[in-house]
Amino acid sequence: MITAEIISVGDEITSGQIADTNAAWLSQRLGDLGIAVMAHSAARDVQSEIVDALKRAARQADVIVVTGGVGPTHDDLTREAAAEAAGAELVAHEPSLEHIREIFARRGLVMPDSNSKQATYPAGGDILPNANGTAAGFRTTVGSANVFALPGVPSEMMQMFTDEVVPRLPASDGAIAVRMLHSFWMSESVIADKLTGEIDLDGNPKVGLLATGGVISVKFTACAETHEAALALIEPPLEKARRLLGEPVFGEDDDTLERVVARLLAEQGKTIALAESCTGGLVAHWLTNVPGISDHFVQGLVTYSNEAKTRLLGVPEELLKKVGAVSEEVARLMAENVRERAGTDIGVGISGIAGPGGGTPEKPVGAVHVAVATADGTVHRKLKLRGAREVVKDRAAKHALNLVRLALR
Amino acid sequence: MITAEIISVGDEITSGQIADTNAAWLSQRLGDLGIAVMAHSAARDVQSEIVDALKRAARQADVIVVTGGVGPTHDDLTREAAAEAAGAELVAHEPSLEHIREIFARRGLVMPDSNSKQATYPAGGDILPNANGTAAGFRTTVGSANVFALPGVPSEMMQMFTDEVVPRLPASDGAIAVRMLHSFWMSESVIADKLTGEIDLDGNPKVGLLATGGVISVKFTACAETHEAALALIEPPLEKARRLLGEPVFGEDDDTLERVVARLLAEQGKTIALAESCTGGLVAHWLTNVPGISDHFVQGLVTYSNEAKTRLLGVPEELLKKVGAVSEEVARLMAENVRERAGTDIGVGISGIAGPGGGTPEKPVGAVHVAVATADGTVHRKLKLRGAREVVKDRAAKHALNLVRLALR
Repeated sequence: MITAEIISVGDEITSGQIADTNAAWLSQRLGDLGIAVMAHSAARDVQSEIVDALKRAARQADVIVVTGGVGPTHDDLTREAAAEAAGAELVAHEPSLEHIREIFARRGLVMPDSNSKQATYPAGGDILPNANGTAAGFRTTVGSANVFALPGVPSEMMQMFTDEVVPRLPASDGAIAVRMLHSFWMSESVIADKLTGEIDLDGNPKVGLLATGGVISVKFTACAETHEAALALIEPPLEKARRLLGEPVFGEDDDTLERVVARLLAEQGKTIALAESCTGGLVAHWLTNVPGISDHFVQGLVTYSNEAKTRLLGVPEELLKKVGAVSEEVARLMAENVRERAGTDIGVGISGIAGPGGGTPEKPVGAVHVAVATADGTVHRKLKLRGAREVVKDRAAKHALNLVRLALR
Repeated sequence: MITAEIISVGDEITSGQIADTNAAWLSQRLGDLGIAVMAHSAARDVQSEIVDALKRAARQADVIVVTGGVGPTHDDLTREAAAEAAGAELVAHEPSLEHIREIFARRGLVMPDSNSKQATYPAGGDILPNANGTAAGFRTTVGSANVFALPGVPSEMMQMFTDEVVPRLPASDGAIAVRMLHSFWMSESVIADKLTGEIDLDGNPKVGLLATGGVISVKFTACAETHEAALALIEPPLEKARRLLGEPVFGEDDDTLERVVARLLAEQGKTIALAESCTGGLVAHWLTNVPGISDHFVQGLVTYSNEAKTRLLGVPEELLKKVGAVSEEVARLMAENVRERAGTDIGVGISGIAGPGGGTPEKPVGAVHVAVATADGTVHRKLKLRGAREVVKDRAAKHALNLVRLALR
């Protein structure tokens, strides 16, 4: 299998001014082409450090993609570093120089001298033209590795990778396929225990776990001669994992809880209304990220104050005084009354304490009640969540969507 | 100057499944503390590759921060790799084991055996407790470098870096200070034109521009013997930039539009109610991320259907038929009626077409009307936004908050 490394050049990356999204994008594309990305690295705008990164990567990878450092300024040093690592001179490429001059001329400007270095490349390699900017890329060789250097601007980098790098990549002897199963609120170790001994975790496909905000995903990565063959290798263990993990599995691949809920609503022709308190509109925000939800989402209420709970939802003042807004009774009533008043199939009620203030010994920060009302009655969950305000909101909103999903099954 | 490297561990990073935002966050924090981050790298879940990355980083950096690979599963290998690189045995830490058992007990579960490895660390180092999860971090020494290993989950990583790593970092012989000015909906080149010639952009502080989602930030980075001295260097050009840029500057440093709006509401003792259509609850979600907003935020309505606009806000059916929901008239009425019905000082109305469907030649995707009603009357903006559904929602919500900010000045 062909291997690759990605090197991101620039102080803006190493200083954390911008997150390196190029490396993630390139890794996905290379993976789709059957090229395994073994490592990423980021180097400052220091020639010797870029040279070191190139030489090190060349010892283990067949393909190196470098982004950044191909601009016109004194701290754009990827060309110089690549020439040094390749042991080649930088030579000028006349058509690229002409292209840069034209870009300036179109804006009514004369090309500054500093830009001429953007049309150079290490002798023995190729220029990779940049249709959308002045920074040409180039291909060169360091040790036995093919090095492709591209600009750091994502739109230019993506276009040049697709048009100029992909056709020059060494042919891979195989393809990679990736599939995912997503579960909610099941601990990583419980999932690992269920799968261990039942599924070969270190075979082909390789099976790994990934945790993001209460969602634990099982990732299957297979290699085979074709993408289809790799997908076929994944199918049996994926099906087995789905059976072993059961109800907490809510979707696969690009699925999110809100997309699954939106799909179930569409399949069943049902409507939904929300009454949110501590989640503050987050469930409504997520649901309305799904195109087409307007056929099923009638309304959301963010009844943050007690007065709004009474006025908009008919929660009796006396009940709020007696049991408090954060209670099973109030969450159930919110779900039932928003369903009734909006005339929807499903009503959701969420009330809790997101923190950092507002907690008491009986109702600490993270105490949340979630209720889902349908024609079949109302289900309720009491949650004890941990973490900062935004984490409590996030987990409570996911629990609410998950409860709707289970009610729609 | 003390130097650092950041190593991100995990196939999800090298395969591009997720972008490495932890490295950017850590680099910023370390830079703020006067520690220069020289390089980032990402390694797969392969023990020998993590060991190589640690040993290589230890040859050039004083501090190494590793994120990821401290979970309970067979492919969480940062502990094993760090112990190998440090030449130390992994030993158990009883209090951490007890903490993990408690987390499971609180959910009514028994800790699986696999989790016990999360309470181990290389002998001679320290455990770094994780208040919000089962994955403890640890400190160890590889060569002469201090290695800090943290979970990959951003919320846990951030809290542990702040509480556990910062107090253990070696003292730096210089300090970096960073300040930011944030403006909304002003183009980068207009800002650059206003600042050029008035402020030294390449001096100390160095001045750069950063664009994120309609917010353009001017970043000032200064170096001096102390943090206070570096801050003092920034003050004069920052004040000058604030004057030059004027009204579009909404805040500085950690300010966001919603935090600024919440602060203005608190300072003036005012209340707010929202009526959102195309933003789908996003303004309510952002506002309710600000602790203490419950004293000022009475309610939010997500009136996604026309029927809900009529029932909850009294927008006449005939008006909706005549001018359509996406119109100046309806947005104004939404703002005015939610203000009146909720009895608040401020009412906000937002109606638009987020796409990808629903556009017409007269009202294309991205057409949004925003209105803010106060005792002084109602202001309105018609927006023509570009981009995907989530981008339209994001920019429309920011425009609404910005209009509230201007109304509160």
